[in-house]
Amino acid sequence: MRGQPIFNRLALIGMGLIGSSIARATRAQGTARSIVATARSAATRRRVAELGLADQVVETNAAAAEGADLVIVAIPVGACGEVAAEIGPHLAPGAIVSDVGSVKGTVLRAMSPHLPAGVHFVPAHPVAGTENSGPDAGFAELFVNRWCILTPPSSVEPTAVERLAAFWRLLGANVEIMSAEHHDLVLGITSHLPHLIAYTIVGTADELSQVTRSEVLQFSAGGFRDFTRIAASDPTMWRDVFLANKDAVLEMLGRFNEDLATLTRAIRRGDGETLFNQFSRTRAIRRAIVDIGQDSPVPDFGRPHPELPHQPLPRPYAAED
Amino acid sequence: MRGQPIFNRLALIGMGLIGSSIARATRAQGTARSIVATARSAATRRRVAELGLADQVVETNAAAAEGADLVIVAIPVGACGEVAAEIGPHLAPGAIVSDVGSVKGTVLRAMSPHLPAGVHFVPAHPVAGTENSGPDAGFAELFVNRWCILTPPSSVEPTAVERLAAFWRLLGANVEIMSAEHHDLVLGITSHLPHLIAYTIVGTADELSQVTRSEVLQFSAGGFRDFTRIAASDPTMWRDVFLANKDAVLEMLGRFNEDLATLTRAIRRGDGETLFNQFSRTRAIRRAIVDIGQDSPVPDFGRPHPELPHQPLPRPYAAED
Repeated sequence: MRGQPIFNRLALIGMGLIGSSIARATRAQGTARSIVATARSAATRRRVAELGLADQVVETNAAAAEGADLVIVAIPVGACGEVAAEIGPHLAPGAIVSDVGSVKGTVLRAMSPHLPAGVHFVPAHPVAGTENSGPDAGFAELFVNRWCILTPPSSVEPTAVERLAAFWRLLGANVEIMSAEHHDLVLGITSHLPHLIAYTIVGTADELSQVTRSEVLQFSAGGFRDFTRIAASDPTMWRDVFLANKDAVLEMLGRFNEDLATLTRAIRRGDGETLFNQFSRTRAIRRAIVDIGQDSPVPDFGRPHPELPHQPLPRPYAAED
Repeated sequence: MRGQPIFNRLALIGMGLIGSSIARATRAQGTARSIVATARSAATRRRVAELGLADQVVETNAAAAEGADLVIVAIPVGACGEVAAEIGPHLAPGAIVSDVGSVKGTVLRAMSPHLPAGVHFVPAHPVAGTENSGPDAGFAELFVNRWCILTPPSSVEPTAVERLAAFWRLLGANVEIMSAEHHDLVLGITSHLPHLIAYTIVGTADELSQVTRSEVLQFSAGGFRDFTRIAASDPTMWRDVFLANKDAVLEMLGRFNEDLATLTRAIRRGDGETLFNQFSRTRAIRRAIVDIGQDSPVPDFGRPHPELPHQPLPRPYAAED
């Protein structure tokens, strides 16, 4: 059952994993009457047209913004200020402008000055994604049962916030509202620090002289491969995240380093009790995440395990009768 | 098609995730005529009997070893020496003794002195597992297309090594042979360090004063939840791994800390180029792991994404006609 549209014309600026998933979900749910899309590269615009993800694909950000009552900027956070400057003069009065960036404080500061009075700026961050990028990587169900965090400045009209919240809920997301500053701390620990650590360890493994790259790949099922999934995320997006959320990330890194030093000392001293206590505690946290539906309970992430081979026995090793 | 058994009597000492998976796969593949199993706790022995995982469940390690031509010790590495001392006097001449420990150097040193001449000791490490533990967690396909590393001392008869290799291949594994010392370096980076980092970061997140535990859980889809899966692994097993592979883990930790310091400095200085270059490199490594079949190509580990809700639209936010 499709509801009535919340918006007449949705403009999507940027059609990567997130932008193209919003387009697909909007289509599926009928939350906007029409979708106009644009992307920086001509190849992406062409692909978006081929995939039929929008009613209209335009060449400039200004053209996309023209006449839209919801504009979502779905690009790396470092480019948000510039795009705001481009679209500012073309925004319709009463339009809602939003984004999907993983950092909110800097985006708020970068975009706000360029947005005219009478436009409602409601920054948003859907906490959802995969390790893939580009318009082909998106899918309509990406946001279902994931959280979308809105960080509206206090000056924004509550009805605009509610309208955007209703839009995200129809895309399947749960909506939470908090300050940009608090968002950046929460995501610093739940997303940015894990990505930094994953990127680091994958690099460390690749540079060892004692262990070859092919050995690292071959034996990656022991834990390493889970880190590589995260470390396969979009490099431009993540470069911008760390530059934009520098303070919170450095703060979280400081805490992490202290905790790692404690465990390192326990290993050095052969202090099994400290290790055991720490390792026991973390199991409960995993269980809680599964309990609240933020991860699958299927073991090993439900990775497929191929069937047993049932191969014939090599004769020489048959047990004697 | 089931082959002829390679062993007459397989003794499994320890029936957790790995031991019980070996039992199931052995049954499915017919690689041993009979299975005798034991476990330290009476509850586990009872459960193994209930599940019908073995032909015989016995109360002591000595009784399990009696008359077996293959004995696999599938317990935390810290307990391997003690168990070797218990079974040593009861081993049949010509029997093969093996283990499944994630560390090989210390296990080799702990077990060897207790094993009589005429017994073939071939340490093994199947690089496979999930975050779950216990006899209910095992499944027959766990080892399919995973690697099993054998680290036989040079004094061991090659036919014994080949016989154990044939056994593991029938369980679906690929077999690789290397020295215990090299194994411990390879696993130090591909498994032990990732686990230590995951355990650390999950602990760090849980202790922050600025971000509540429920926020950490709620927004864990941004990357954190992948770490919690690894940090949900068996605490006793992992305590023993870090105590047993101390030198290699501390060495890998040193390298990791240097690399993390480099990225931290890049963030502090706003050096986007260093970040971008590092983040681009790691993506190729992910692709290579998927290419060689050591991880699933399905995005997001193939986590289920529930259907879109198709909920009715809240009236007040309908766009004007």
